[in-house]
Amino acid sequence: MPEGRFYILGLGPGDPELMTLKAARILGQVPVVAFFAKRGRVGHARTIVDGQLRKDAEELRLEYPFTTEVDVASPRYLAEMGVFYEACADKLREHLQEGRDVALLCEGDPFLYGSAMYLFDRLEGAEIVPGVSGMSGCWSRAGVPMVHGDDVLAVLPGTLDEETLTARLKLCDAAVLMKVGRNLPKICDALRAAGLFERAVYIERGTMADELVIKLADRGDGPAPYFSMVLVPGRQRAR
Amino acid sequence: MPEGRFYILGLGPGDPELMTLKAARILGQVPVVAFFAKRGRVGHARTIVDGQLRKDAEELRLEYPFTTEVDVASPRYLAEMGVFYEACADKLREHLQEGRDVALLCEGDPFLYGSAMYLFDRLEGAEIVPGVSGMSGCWSRAGVPMVHGDDVLAVLPGTLDEETLTARLKLCDAAVLMKVGRNLPKICDALRAAGLFERAVYIERGTMADELVIKLADRGDGPAPYFSMVLVPGRQRAR
Repeated sequence: MPEGRFYILGLGPGDPELMTLKAARILGQVPVVAFFAKRGRVGHARTIVDGQLRKDAEELRLEYPFTTEVDVASPRYLAEMGVFYEACADKLREHLQEGRDVALLCEGDPFLYGSAMYLFDRLEGAEIVPGVSGMSGCWSRAGVPMVHGDDVLAVLPGTLDEETLTARLKLCDAAVLMKVGRNLPKICDALRAAGLFERAVYIERGTMADELVIKLADRGDGPAPYFSMVLVPGRQRAR
Repeated sequence: MPEGRFYILGLGPGDPELMTLKAARILGQVPVVAFFAKRGRVGHARTIVDGQLRKDAEELRLEYPFTTEVDVASPRYLAEMGVFYEACADKLREHLQEGRDVALLCEGDPFLYGSAMYLFDRLEGAEIVPGVSGMSGCWSRAGVPMVHGDDVLAVLPGTLDEETLTARLKLCDAAVLMKVGRNLPKICDALRAAGLFERAVYIERGTMADELVIKLADRGDGPAPYFSMVLVPGRQRAR
């Protein structure tokens, strides 16, 4: 029996209409869909595909063993997440070996900080379907053209330490700060040190129903939710 | 009479199936589509939407006054391109003022080095529809997960000088080199100087029919076509 096909589907930044034609076609065909979710949540990727799945599709919910209660830098985090991803890979492999196609759902674009990469590394022959990234969704909604001409764009996780963030910010024209959440006060300090604070735009739940777009200077640096991002648009070119 | 709506549509990296549901819906509705094209060419964005337009759609072909024969850094280039973009904006404004919706077609994502930004700056109230970026299309096809965890991603135009490229490459974990073309020999030298040459992957016409993916070290540094990109994947995380 031939193996099933393994698709890793980027679903875009949140608005279901920002999914690609290809992702929508595959979602309507596959008998098995898998997705990551936090304990007690539906799972963001699963939410995006509501109404797009085959009626008889089997859903594999892959629930993270923990979210923020274990530090990502601790040996326990790495070890337990490794065990978790192995178990996820085993579940998907079982379906594939029995000839069933499986689609793993991913918000945004799979190869840009996506958990899907840990299953890509463990299962052979995945077909990656790229998606509109969260950052593209956010800068489109914010109405800030990001990079022109020779501009350099840096994509920086807010989890970096302040000194590293500041140094990287000083060497780019435009920046995207991901993984904002509780790192926002540190991000604000780094932006001030790099002289970019006044230019920065804050976006929460970009492209989704309860989206918020505001100048970072007007927001202040209180804690932010997970689906938030800070954008620093590049130099404005001579017109 | 109410003004028409102005859409700037990201169409993705080249494979027409990587367009979003939203872009496809708007393409099927608008009476006017506009697109940039080089002299003697159909225009890449126009090619992507073949078969998606209204049968009676009016097409506004916006032909660049020159491509590579005038240096982008020269005063003549800036002045003449400014005149060109003003004339394009006037053509679109005429339709909008007469109540017709207009969609401006863009390959990739509009706010990531797209010419559409020059019309966004000149016309009020555009709705930006983000697209799958060329780089997402390329790294998906190359099968290289780009950034995990704390990785920093730099997006670098190959038009930068070698020293700047090298310095920026030394300060990131993953990199995308855009605007490769005749800059490839310089890009190769900068990657060697930064110790990243062996990790780099070269992609030509990513997601399109005659796509080529090859390790940069196996390709050599002869001149490359416009639709080419070099990717340096980030650190591989502990699994």
